Amino acid sequence: MKEIAVRTTSHTQFVNIDARVEDAIAAMGIRDGLCHVFVPHTTAGITINENADPDVVADMIQALERAVPWQAHYAHAEGNAAAHVKASMMGFSQTVPIRGGKLAFGTWQSLYFCEFDGPRTRKVWVQCVPA
Amino acid sequence: MKEIAVRTTSHTQFVNIDARVEDAIAAMGIRDGLCHVFVPHTTAGITINENADPDVVADMIQALERAVPWQAHYAHAEGNAAAHVKASMMGFSQTVPIRGGKLAFGTWQSLYFCEFDGPRTRKVWVQCVPA
Amino acid sequence: MKEIAVRTTSHTQFVNIDARVEDAIAAMGIRDGLCHVFVPHTTAGITINENADPDVVADMIQALERAVPWQAHYAHAEGNAAAHVKASMMGFSQTVPIRGGKLAFGTWQSLYFCEFDGPRTRKVWVQCVPA
Repeated sequence: MKEIAVRTTSHTQFVNIDARVEDAIAAMGIRDGLCHVFVPHTTAGITINENADPDVVADMIQALERAVPWQAHYAHAEGNAAAHVKASMMGFSQTVPIRGGKLAFGTWQSLYFCEFDGPRTRKVWVQCVPA
Repeated sequence: MKEIAVRTTSHTQFVNIDARVEDAIAAMGIRDGLCHVFVPHTTAGITINENADPDVVADMIQALERAVPWQAHYAHAEGNAAAHVKASMMGFSQTVPIRGGKLAFGTWQSLYFCEFDGPRTRKVWVQCVPA
Repeated sequence: MKEIAVRTTSHTQFVNIDARVEDAIAAMGIRDGLCHVFVPHTTAGITINENADPDVVADMIQALERAVPWQAHYAHAEGNAAAHVKASMMGFSQTVPIRGGKLAFGTWQSLYFCEFDGPRTRKVWVQCVPA
């Protein structure tokens, strides 16, 4: 298992972590198999999405805010209930095929750490299962 | 594979199943690896979230109800279409790292069975892949 | 790893892919373990849900459209931002137990490829981890 640190700089932010996950895969020496990328937090998640047009990520953040507004008479005293919901909607782990030591993605896919209550220093855990 | 029974007592309810999943891991004798926890239903799901303040889970239930209202001119005659959508949004499985025979969670994380059309007696399937 | 082609015929469509995934499992000769089904796209996802009443899938499509409307002042020039968000909400992979060479599902469960920006010819990647 390898741990990656992700430092976010905004309240809500999607951070492309492909390169850091592939460094972890290389350090583990896995050529083919499955890569499990896990976020050990409750107000940040992880998803896959388009890496070509940065507007996609901006639109995703906006659409999630519309579906789960930050202000909505929540009970949780910390005031970040929406972050918990959005993180669960994106998920806390992604499993991606590994081929030739790289994440076997479709053409436009990248792995995004999803910060919903930053800025913070966060962790990501990478574990691999050989094929 | 180990099966866990979960008896829910409300229509919509998040049930912490950490202890029961860790019992299953112990029974399988797995010390390190990945734990796959699968819900074999279509109106209940599974997610990870905060175990400290019970308001978080209450807020999550409320936010999901706002995003996917129970009443919304659905076609499905059983009347529980919203439960199907919420279950898909949370997901039907979670994969969590195992370290030292325990679920390797972040500080505030727990595994929640998500009942969206209870009360019912439900099942959860636990399977492990050794590291 | 086995690749499946999925040809969608509508803009938004859930396609049951159980039979094709089980063909891939048979071709790989896996009897027991975990099956990882991955969608290498960013405007299509994958979920599990009910296969009995087709109204369930129709309601799911409608509820996702309500939560994430197609038209909502998005920035992404291609005009399909909602498809990216819905795909992330459903997820890009599902992991399902395999027993006796078959997907070990609950009574009503099936695996659905979720097209959110079709019609297109899409791919699904199936990989298995033996128990």
